[in-house]
Amino acid sequence: MLDLVEEKKDVLSKETLKKIANALRALAIDATQAANSGHPGLPLGCADIMAVLYAECLAHYPKEADWFCRDRFVLSAGHGSMLLYGALHLSGFDVSMQHLKDFRQWGSPSAGHPEYGHLEGVECTTGPLGQGLGMAVGMALSQQMFKARFDHENNGLFDCQTYCLAGDGDLMEGVASEAASLAGHLALSNLVLIYDSNDICLDGETKECFTENVSDRFKAYNWDVLDCDGHCFDSIRACLKQAKQNQEKPTLIVAKTTIGYGAKAVEGTSAAHGKVLGESLAKETKAALGIHWPDFSVPDEVLTCFKTRLFEQEKRYQQWQKCFSDWQDKHQTRFETMQAGFRKESVDLEAFKTCFKAGSATRSHSGALLQEISKAFSYVVGGSADLSSSDQTFIKGEGIVSKETYAAKNIKFGVREFAMAAMSNGIALHGYFKPYCGTFFVFSDYMKNAMRLAALMNLPVVYQLTHDSIFLGEDGPTHQPIEQLASLRATPNLIVIRPADEHELLAAWHIALNATGPVALVLTRQNVPLLEASSYEKARQGAYVVFESDKKEKDVLLIATGSEVALALDVASQLESKGVAARVVSMPSWELFEQQSDAYKGSVLGDASLKVSIEAASSMGWHRYVGDQGLCVSIDGFGASGKASDLALGFGFDAKAIVDNILKQL
Amino acid sequence: MLDLVEEKKDVLSKETLKKIANALRALAIDATQAANSGHPGLPLGCADIMAVLYAECLAHYPKEADWFCRDRFVLSAGHGSMLLYGALHLSGFDVSMQHLKDFRQWGSPSAGHPEYGHLEGVECTTGPLGQGLGMAVGMALSQQMFKARFDHENNGLFDCQTYCLAGDGDLMEGVASEAASLAGHLALSNLVLIYDSNDICLDGETKECFTENVSDRFKAYNWDVLDCDGHCFDSIRACLKQAKQNQEKPTLIVAKTTIGYGAKAVEGTSAAHGKVLGESLAKETKAALGIHWPDFSVPDEVLTCFKTRLFEQEKRYQQWQKCFSDWQDKHQTRFETMQAGFRKESVDLEAFKTCFKAGSATRSHSGALLQEISKAFSYVVGGSADLSSSDQTFIKGEGIVSKETYAAKNIKFGVREFAMAAMSNGIALHGYFKPYCGTFFVFSDYMKNAMRLAALMNLPVVYQLTHDSIFLGEDGPTHQPIEQLASLRATPNLIVIRPADEHELLAAWHIALNATGPVALVLTRQNVPLLEASSYEKARQGAYVVFESDKKEKDVLLIATGSEVALALDVASQLESKGVAARVVSMPSWELFEQQSDAYKGSVLGDASLKVSIEAASSMGWHRYVGDQGLCVSIDGFGASGKASDLALGFGFDAKAIVDNILKQL
Repeated sequence: MLDLVEEKKDVLSKETLKKIANALRALAIDATQAANSGHPGLPLGCADIMAVLYAECLAHYPKEADWFCRDRFVLSAGHGSMLLYGALHLSGFDVSMQHLKDFRQWGSPSAGHPEYGHLEGVECTTGPLGQGLGMAVGMALSQQMFKARFDHENNGLFDCQTYCLAGDGDLMEGVASEAASLAGHLALSNLVLIYDSNDICLDGETKECFTENVSDRFKAYNWDVLDCDGHCFDSIRACLKQAKQNQEKPTLIVAKTTIGYGAKAVEGTSAAHGKVLGESLAKETKAALGIHWPDFSVPDEVLTCFKTRLFEQEKRYQQWQKCFSDWQDKHQTRFETMQAGFRKESVDLEAFKTCFKAGSATRSHSGALLQEISKAFSYVVGGSADLSSSDQTFIKGEGIVSKETYAAKNIKFGVREFAMAAMSNGIALHGYFKPYCGTFFVFSDYMKNAMRLAALMNLPVVYQLTHDSIFLGEDGPTHQPIEQLASLRATPNLIVIRPADEHELLAAWHIALNATGPVALVLTRQNVPLLEASSYEKARQGAYVVFESDKKEKDVLLIATGSEVALALDVASQLESKGVAARVVSMPSWELFEQQSDAYKGSVLGDASLKVSIEAASSMGWHRYVGDQGLCVSIDGFGASGKASDLALGFGFDAKAIVDNILKQL
Repeated sequence: MLDLVEEKKDVLSKETLKKIANALRALAIDATQAANSGHPGLPLGCADIMAVLYAECLAHYPKEADWFCRDRFVLSAGHGSMLLYGALHLSGFDVSMQHLKDFRQWGSPSAGHPEYGHLEGVECTTGPLGQGLGMAVGMALSQQMFKARFDHENNGLFDCQTYCLAGDGDLMEGVASEAASLAGHLALSNLVLIYDSNDICLDGETKECFTENVSDRFKAYNWDVLDCDGHCFDSIRACLKQAKQNQEKPTLIVAKTTIGYGAKAVEGTSAAHGKVLGESLAKETKAALGIHWPDFSVPDEVLTCFKTRLFEQEKRYQQWQKCFSDWQDKHQTRFETMQAGFRKESVDLEAFKTCFKAGSATRSHSGALLQEISKAFSYVVGGSADLSSSDQTFIKGEGIVSKETYAAKNIKFGVREFAMAAMSNGIALHGYFKPYCGTFFVFSDYMKNAMRLAALMNLPVVYQLTHDSIFLGEDGPTHQPIEQLASLRATPNLIVIRPADEHELLAAWHIALNATGPVALVLTRQNVPLLEASSYEKARQGAYVVFESDKKEKDVLLIATGSEVALALDVASQLESKGVAARVVSMPSWELFEQQSDAYKGSVLGDASLKVSIEAASSMGWHRYVGDQGLCVSIDGFGASGKASDLALGFGFDAKAIVDNILKQL
């Protein structure tokens, strides 16, 4: 093992750690007081833990915050943001005292909850409970998958840990259960979860709603569990050390703490959780804790301590860089090229045009293409929530990720959609892999808030969402999406693409692989024909004309997506035979279309007197394109069980019915 | 204890039970073969369990399927629907052989997954995994809460059980974890979960993704756990008996089964899960199992057995009715009146108009009103996902539901939004209580699919969703809803109401209490003024005029919802001062508005040359009302941390900015 991986320096004295912890507490009190908003309970309660973590434990280098092989820290209990900001400030990240003074203010990066990309050292956006743990599991898995690919000498060069601090609220959430179960299955020994166990949740005591044995639950997940006094530095240090040495399993450290520690009037009660202390209690708390230095300042002893640490970190970082440089020379590879262009250069899929089997479902086209993508772009990994055989997300010959085979590419997430999406965020945040994940479209509901966080963080996650309409057939309304397209289209920063055939599917993956943010591919279960006028290039503009009547003045504009484009072409042809001139626009993606120039948009939409949308989903939003006098051929109730052909007739997705309707309107 | 509660009859012979199980298997094979669609794996694997359940165990009476004090059975693994339909058919529910022949066909009530309200004896819609267990927990809790209110003599008159059959897929889902944890906390001893543990999930073997120790996990939740051979009738019976006798805790029966039992070519593999057997394997399977009777038929021995059981059930049911009748006489109460009108008569809230504190947030108005509603309508119960102090859902003086105090009204769901919504569905399905549940609006994402199931089943659940826009302020974008309004509005059958002030809030609760389906109340964190023209009566029409310029021809129509109505009035007044005539429409609910006549809708929307929507959320859908040339004052990106007043300016929710924009457009 590399020497540098071992922590050699002496531990800090209790007095120093206490002062660091109190410096963190003071900053949290000052910032929440100044903002008159925020959560003092967690910072006061977890400052001792955070002091050991940031002053002794984490292997990172604040002057190179993006160092790839750093330890990661996720504050899953994101409401305790000021504790994190304080620790980052002390550690020497680019987090200034002014940032802390501007806590929670408009325009300041020190947001109410930690926001990825706003402040250095904030590894992910947290606040929606449970998902921080999900992302931490994804990061830890990604670290293992990276290591398995490149640690050829097994010398620890790529060893790193992921630490996560979570509260009772996190551990009550289902997504945390899902992620923890999978972390145990995958034996992520580099993952350390510190559970801030203070017997208090927002609404009162946990004994009113949360009385399970968390330790036993995590043991059942195949975790090691350590008990810790969250206010005893020796106990914290011993647990963190033992957790780091664990080579077999993830570790849960159950740290008993007192919420609002030091704020006597409220400590140990839910009153400490999310309400600022107020001037008088703030003063009393500081006095009780022995905090005698001015507001928004840090004692010299603490500054000196972190200065020394930064110096050591620099040495260690440089040593690592030297080793890594040797490694690169030896293996004749550069980190940049290891990523094969991910986030670096634009990817073109033209060469894969031949991989499709004509007349298949778009899910099958995607499955076929994924095999090629996997060969060409080694950083693409992913999996499914137990539906890879249905949603066509399995990469053949690339194995299933397990504790023995982290170098594989297929992640079996189990029936855990929410954790899958949260973990995919973690994988994307880790920064080496580009993750995709799949499930039935309707079950995007289960993972929606993680997709939202991907959008908020602008993470390049690809969602493969299949069985995209009532036309999945007999499984019935619980499995048939209706409102999901509207829901995802309304989500900012998320690109939604519903391709009509293999050309558009290729365009969809082109967008997905080149995007810096999340992309949802919405794919059919049923077979669809290859359209005459579909286009890999044009589809990337979001919408384009696929049919025009010869007549210059169009009576009708038909806009359709996905499997309904072929139907729209049928409708247009029947209209034509009745002397009605139509244009058909295929609109695989609203978001891509809205990125185009007004001139282009106008040229596509034209000025037909009647505009009609055809999509087997909610009409919500379509009036934007067809106007308030337009016609939406849509489904605004739930679906039904039956053969796809019967459903098409029953729900009016039938060329004749649509033609009749249009003729009536004209 | 009442004699009738004890099961006295002799148990069935193994031979008879085997024949029943095989009758169930045969029906499942025949139906999936006829449909050429469906899931044979679970019916073949769990038929032995189902035989004991339906032929010996469940205390119900198929001729009075709605008998209130029946045992409930939930097939959480809804893809095994044919096993349930078969059992209902044999038991004498109104499920005919024709229904089974029409399995999964258009127009048939024997849908692909069990659909509540389609077939007698189907207690809830299942298919989206994990939620069946969540609903079962809600039903079991509801049974306990009902019993605690009325079993004055503690003689078991209202004792009943909830049984749930769940597979590996269910137990991987976070919602199942949340619900199971809460069931353990609440010590729901009337809940029996049968875990179909067959080591197989859709995508392969569970060893690839699900290796936790489920028994230990449930013990950690405070459940009793029994091991069962799922193909041994004695073992199944012994476990069910022991589970029923358990007075302390919910019971998990871990039943080891073989998926696709009897279909030798696929049994014990994922190939048996969701693919029909095909003609030849179907024949082989029947032969191997000793099924020699014709397709879609039932052996006489089985018919006789269920006939006898039905006769016993009738006796037992009549005996119970007699006891209940005596109980009603003795306590001078009728079951109908116990429900105080729920689902019976229309409720008016006019009398509660005085409970509000002027100028409060709509969440606070709702909290104040809830106190009055609770006094007037005893069947209203509910709770929050650990936010009752924020979302104002706590009923004062009515206690917290616990194993000692099931008669209380406040359910502390913990930070478990998804289970909360699924359990609320279960409570509504049980049929006595009208449940409400609350969380922050943005976290409706976490429970979305359970809300969808409420909508699909048309269950009267009320969602109190507070902190409804960026104006919640400093908590920032993770907590600020943007796309949630569009998402819920696009969900069929769900009424969404965003009231502007206390009058509209009263209307919202009026709708919620009278609705037969789900209603989402979307409420502010921040204070809002009482509007001059707001109306309890008019708001119930979904939209109405709250301001008109004197000038007859309007230049501008402003449509706003919730906290933005006051802003729209400001805008109108400023426009007026510039000589621009405006009308302001408050539109608390799209769904209610769409229920109105075209004439009414036209009269409200008018024909102003410019139509403008003002809502601090995604513009998705607003073009329906403002047209493709209209103006949407909306937020199509994410929010930010900051004071509400700064956010208003920053995001353009400022009268002056809007006026300028409108003047530019005119």
